[in-house]
Formats: sequence, structure tokens, C-alpha cells
Amino acid sequence: MQAKNIAIVGSGLVGSLLAIYLRKRNHSVTVFDRRPDIRKVEFSGRSINLAMSVRGWKALEKVAIADEIKKIAIPMHKRAMHVNGKPEYHQYYGDEGEAIYSISRGVLNREMITLAEKAGVVFRFEEKVWDVNLPEAKIYTGETEKGAWKEYQYDMIFGCDGAFSRVRHKMQRRSRFDYSQDFLDAGYKELEIPANPDGTHRLDKNSLHIWPRGKFMLIALPNLDGSFTCTLFMPHEGENSFETLTDDQKVLNFWKKNFPDAIPLMPTLLEDFNKNPTSALVTMRCYPWTYWDKIALVGDSAHAIVPFYGQGMNAGFEDISVLDDIISKAENDDWQAIFETYQESRKKNTDAIAELSYRNFMEMSSKTADPDFLLRKQIEKHFSDKYPDKWEPLYSNVTFSHMPYAKALELGDIQSEIMDEIMKEANIKNRWDTVEIEHKILELLAERG
Amino acid sequence: MQAKNIAIVGSGLVGSLLAIYLRKRNHSVTVFDRRPDIRKVEFSGRSINLAMSVRGWKALEKVAIADEIKKIAIPMHKRAMHVNGKPEYHQYYGDEGEAIYSISRGVLNREMITLAEKAGVVFRFEEKVWDVNLPEAKIYTGETEKGAWKEYQYDMIFGCDGAFSRVRHKMQRRSRFDYSQDFLDAGYKELEIPANPDGTHRLDKNSLHIWPRGKFMLIALPNLDGSFTCTLFMPHEGENSFETLTDDQKVLNFWKKNFPDAIPLMPTLLEDFNKNPTSALVTMRCYPWTYWDKIALVGDSAHAIVPFYGQGMNAGFEDISVLDDIISKAENDDWQAIFETYQESRKKNTDAIAELSYRNFMEMSSKTADPDFLLRKQIEKHFSDKYPDKWEPLYSNVTFSHMPYAKALELGDIQSEIMDEIMKEANIKNRWDTVEIEHKILELLAERG
Repeated sequence: MQAKNIAIVGSGLVGSLLAIYLRKRNHSVTVFDRRPDIRKVEFSGRSINLAMSVRGWKALEKVAIADEIKKIAIPMHKRAMHVNGKPEYHQYYGDEGEAIYSISRGVLNREMITLAEKAGVVFRFEEKVWDVNLPEAKIYTGETEKGAWKEYQYDMIFGCDGAFSRVRHKMQRRSRFDYSQDFLDAGYKELEIPANPDGTHRLDKNSLHIWPRGKFMLIALPNLDGSFTCTLFMPHEGENSFETLTDDQKVLNFWKKNFPDAIPLMPTLLEDFNKNPTSALVTMRCYPWTYWDKIALVGDSAHAIVPFYGQGMNAGFEDISVLDDIISKAENDDWQAIFETYQESRKKNTDAIAELSYRNFMEMSSKTADPDFLLRKQIEKHFSDKYPDKWEPLYSNVTFSHMPYAKALELGDIQSEIMDEIMKEANIKNRWDTVEIEHKILELLAERG
Repeated sequence: MQAKNIAIVGSGLVGSLLAIYLRKRNHSVTVFDRRPDIRKVEFSGRSINLAMSVRGWKALEKVAIADEIKKIAIPMHKRAMHVNGKPEYHQYYGDEGEAIYSISRGVLNREMITLAEKAGVVFRFEEKVWDVNLPEAKIYTGETEKGAWKEYQYDMIFGCDGAFSRVRHKMQRRSRFDYSQDFLDAGYKELEIPANPDGTHRLDKNSLHIWPRGKFMLIALPNLDGSFTCTLFMPHEGENSFETLTDDQKVLNFWKKNFPDAIPLMPTLLEDFNKNPTSALVTMRCYPWTYWDKIALVGDSAHAIVPFYGQGMNAGFEDISVLDDIISKAENDDWQAIFETYQESRKKNTDAIAELSYRNFMEMSSKTADPDFLLRKQIEKHFSDKYPDKWEPLYSNVTFSHMPYAKALELGDIQSEIMDEIMKEANIKNRWDTVEIEHKILELLAERG
């Protein structure tokens, strides 16, 4: 395959990983980013934490950087549930040895930019792309929108510039471009549980901690330095909302009522609460993702999702490994065919993970503390342990497998229908582990073929 | 209420009608449009035809211009169906005297700009708005995006600049702005049936003519000059699509096969087909529609819909009459409260007409020629004639009433469920007008409260 001169817009996780992939195939790669080099700016080492799972790891393995990255990741085997009036209890995510991995976005991004540079990628930081000529694959950058612009010509351009992508924005102005952006009623704010004075973690470090409270929740993910990055997810308006927490006393009262066990863990709560912005949560969908053989969107620019399944980065990385598979199989230099296969194979799957992620807010914030939900999960687990070929839990299919997301969603919906039936069985609380229930599940599975 | 200095972006039907309304309340009104004055450009008098129904008329009556506009409208009492191998047959839209009115968009727009000018509205044609400062209600215009801009300051700005609104575009860049654009697989192309040499119409002029063909259809609406404006709706790609009609012979063969009776009526078919563009059909939704007390979207800029219910202009005009009612009831100068009431009351209704319009493509192109569908309509009509208080057909609620669109959709869905049940009755073809069926409908209605 002929070496191309390629531009990538965006030096985030997806942009820098894609750059590494394309360099391995000997293309020339230049990455533009309006921000400064993340390695050179002051940076706490915390920021938003990610949960890397097998789809993400696979994409890193293919370019042999997974081992390097694993050094900066902390395995989380379970949810640690903080319910008022109950001791902390645990829900394992998968089988023994299965875990999702807490990684700081900033630490990971720095590492990947360095790996990309080593692979020969050129980075042009603090150079903002204002416009893109799609059919000619030209990029225009400059200091200001109305000032003088510099023109660059490439063979192709990848838009890895996130949910508010400039590249997609340009495609969006064309006819027959489907697009949607939907904001959740809930937003989020980052907070912190600092390390103990001796550098150890104040909570179990191999857990994703959740304080589920119905329409809002607090979560905490471990960092290497002993701290946890916490996120409060809560409606913007209404009862128990960001809008109501207008002063320190109100924040403190809210914490005393809802997260009393977290107060001693969070000495900088009020400071963090006032300093950090309240951010919005958006799902973005669009189609097509590509233009001729010139332009392709990868990652959040094509499919931004809400964070409740921990799959945002994993889905973006999977875009790259799938695209790479398609390139491997392509018999000639037909990039238009490669791009079409790529978008057709990914679109239904990223729509599915968008849907699953949206639904999972309810599951995490509300259902994880609901006895009926826990019984459902227990029945599923019991059955799945006995018939692993017949029933893999949805969470595992999404998190610990490479099954296409659309297939996982489809199977999950069938399982959900079956469990709705099972939960209607008389006296299910006491009969949940009987042979009759087991046979009933087998029967319902057979019906749904 | 204090007189305000108001800008309207867009001099189309909604922009010019809103300008008249606001002048009646003594506000200063300036309308910006990037296009030249439609009265001064050469203009065939045909272009896309509209179907004005009671919601549109009401909005015109409130400012006493309905009589003037009625002079340029042609009533259409019925659908005239052109099915191959059958004589033309008719489906009345409503009761005796009820009609929708064919009006040329261009003729109407010219008339309304003149009426607005008479009312004291200032028009700034050929002045393109490039940017809007939302919180300060400032407008920036200029020759080019990168050239020098002129700044205007207003008390408030209305975005009436259509489906691809610049004003909305600016709002869309803000956080928590929900937005979607969805393109239909089908597009459209305008064609013509010219007048007879003596200026009479070649088909019945008081009908909306339809050639329903399943996934595509041709329609024709009458003009004052004896011609009809035709529109071919058809998929962009696939079997029977625009993509396949690549030369004159293919177009002609397609017409011979599908619209043979229309060939002698369309002497300029090939010329029109080649000259006129194939256009896309889009549904756009967004929210919120307003910003503080400064900015409001009205008409297509807030809710562009596909044309299959003939309600695009009617919905835009209803926005204006509803907004005017809210202004009348407002006790003080609180425009933020006015705008909030406006968007809350309209959003659910314009979502409903978007849904109904989308569904109606199937009804017009496919079901209108289906015997089962015709029987359904016959049963509904029979029952509705006997129990007008209990059953008003959906089409009538949308077209011949001022019932909120959301309510019409809700009632329509209930009726549809009931008719699904009725159509399952044994031997319904012969029993459709019996007392048993009548009682069954009454019973099903009672169940659904």
C-alpha cells in the first residue's frame, strides 16, 4: 500500500493512538492540536479517570504498547457500594482475574504522545484548525478565525477532535448528513479523595466506589499516587441538583445527609466544589463518518457517549483496531472502500454502546442499590455459572469481550425480557436457585432461539 | 408594554408575518435577509406550492390579511388519485366546504413583504448575518465571513431564517442545546404541468393530484395561471431512485412505466428534470428555542419538518399566533417569561407534527392506494359521521382544527389502535357498516377513556 501524507486533527487519546497505527504502516503523520503539549503544561495527574477494558487493551496490544500502559493502570475487580446504614459491600464485575483498569486521562495521553513521537509522528501543538476543505483534504489554521490562515494539503485527514469536532462540523454543513446532540438532565463535577499522609489509599484501591442515591450518585476511581478522583453526577435542576447547592453550608448539609461516610475522606470538598466547573453530559450521533477517500471521523467526533459504561475511550480505540483490520484486508489502495467498510461496520455498534451507556446511568445510580435488581443479578450469575455457553451477562459481553456492541445490546435485551418473566414467578425470592427456575430460563431461552 | 427595537433574521413567510405582528404592537422592526428582495428578482410565479389550512389562515386573520391572501389561493377539496389501470378517483379531505389551499410560496412571500412594508417594517435585503451575540442581542453582517463586519444592537432578535438558521447555529454551540437533523432516504424534484393554451388547467384544479407508487410518488398542486407545480418524491438510491435516472431515455421509460397518464400533461418533463436540482428532505429538532429575553427562534429554524402533511408553513404561522396570544396575556414586560411560555407550549406540538409528517410519507405514497387502508378510512368516516363528537379523523384534527398537534397525535394513535382491532374482525369487508362493528368501536373507545 502506498505511503500517504496524513493529517490528524486532535492529539487526544484516539488521535495519538491512530497516529501510532498509521506510522506503523509507514504513512507520514502530522497531528494538529489547538492546545499546548499536555506534557509541558502543569497538570495534576488526576483529571477525569478512565476505565480501560479489553477492547482498549486489544488496540494497545496490536501496536505493542499495552505493557507500557499497564504500568500506569490500577485494576478494579469490583464495585464497592456505599449505601447509608449498611457496611460497604462488593459486586464483582466478572470472573476471577477479570478487571477494568483505572487510568488517569492525562497520564495516559502524555505517555501516548511520547510513544507517537518515538514512532515518527509530527505534532503541531497550539495550532488551531479553523476550516477544512473536504474534497481537497486541505486544512486551514491560524491565530484567529478572522485573521490570516495557513493552508496545508494532505492526502487524507482524520478528525479525532472530540465531541465538538471542527472536522465533523464542516461535514455537518453538507446535505444529507444526519446529526444529533442530546444533553442529559444530569451534569457532573470532579472532586477528590486525597491519599493518606503515608501515600496509601483511603479506600480499597482495587474497587470502583459508588455511592448510589437514585437520581444522583458519587463515584471514586483510584490513582497511582494514593488519591481517588471522585465524580458527582447529579441533575442540573430540581430537587437534589447543582442549582440548589449554592453555598458551602448547603453543600455540607447535602453531604451530611447523602454521603456521610465520605466527609472524613474529602478534606478539600468545599474547595474542590467551588473551584471545579459543573460540566454537561452529551450523546452525539452522526452519519456518514467519512467523505470520499479524503476524510474520516474516529472516536468521540463520530460518536460521543455518556460515561456510565466506561466505554468512551474503549469504543474509540476499537474504531482504530477495526479500521486497521479493514486496511489489512484491503487488496488495493482504495481508501474510499476502506472508509465505507469502516463506517458501515462501526455505526451500528457505536449506536448500541451509546444506548447502553445512556441506560447505565439508571443502573448505576439507582438499581445497584435495589434488592430486586440484586436478586436479578444473582439469578443471572447462578444460571450463567452453570451454563456459561448459554448466558454471558451483558456487562461481561460489553466489558470483557470483543463481541460487537450491537450484538451485546441485542442479547442483553433478550436476557432482560427473560428476567422480567422470571421475576414474575411466584415466591421468586425463595425459589431463585431451584431447578424449576433453571428450567424456566432454559425454556424461555429456547423460545427466543 | 414598552416598544422595543427588534431584528428579525429572514424575510421568508414566517419572518415577514412575524414582522407584521410586531409592528401592530408598535415595536420597531428591521428584517435582515441575505437574499435580494424577492419582488425584484425574476421569478416564475410557481416554485414550491404550499397547502394553507386553518392554522395558517387564523394567523393571517389576526392581522386582517387573510382576505387579501385568499385572492391568490386555490381551494383543494380532495385528493385526486391516479392509479395505473383505474380511472382517476377522489378522496375528500373533510366535510363539505372544507379545503386546503394551494398557494405559490413566491407569490405569497412577495405579497407579505409588501404588507409588512406598509405596516412600517424596514427590510435590509442582501445583507448576510454572519454572527450573533446572544446575550447582547447584537448582529454582525458583512460581504464575506472573513471581511469587515457591521455591528447592530437590538433589544431582541428573532431567528426566522429557516432550517439552516444562522441564529440557531450560534445557539447550538452552547452547552445543553439539544439538536438533531435527520435526512429522509427520499429526496424531491420539482416539475411542471403547464396550462392549456387557453389558460385553463389540464387537470381538475380543485384537487391535490397524487400518483402513489409505494416508495415514490408524484404530486401536483394547482397555480393561478393554469399550471400545476409537480413534485416527484423518490429515494436517492436503490431501485426506482434518482440515482438510476441518469439520462433522458431512462427518465422517459420510468414515466411510461409508472406515470403514463402524466406524460401528455408534461411536455417539458425532460427539460425540467435536467434543469431542476434534486433536493433533500430533513427533519430538524432543537431545544431550547430561546435565550434569556433576547433571542427566539420561530418557524423552520426551530422545527423544520418534511412536507407530507402540508403543515410546515401552517406550524410556523401557528408559532406566531400562539406567541401573540402569550404576549397579550403577559402582565408586564417580562420577555424572558414570554419566551419560556412560548417554547414550552410549542415544543411538544411541533415534535408531534414532525412525527405526523414523517409518517404521512408512507400514507401518501403507499397506503392511499391500498384497499385495506381505504376500507379503514371508510369505516372511520362512517362512524365519524354518526358520532362526530366521538371520532374526528386525525387528518381533520391536524388540518381543519386548532387542536394542539400533540393532542391530535395522541388521539390519532388511539384511533389507530382501535382500527387495528376492528380490521381483525371476521369478514370485516362485508360487515364494516353493521351495528355490531359500530358497537365494537364504541366499546373500544370507552375502554380507552
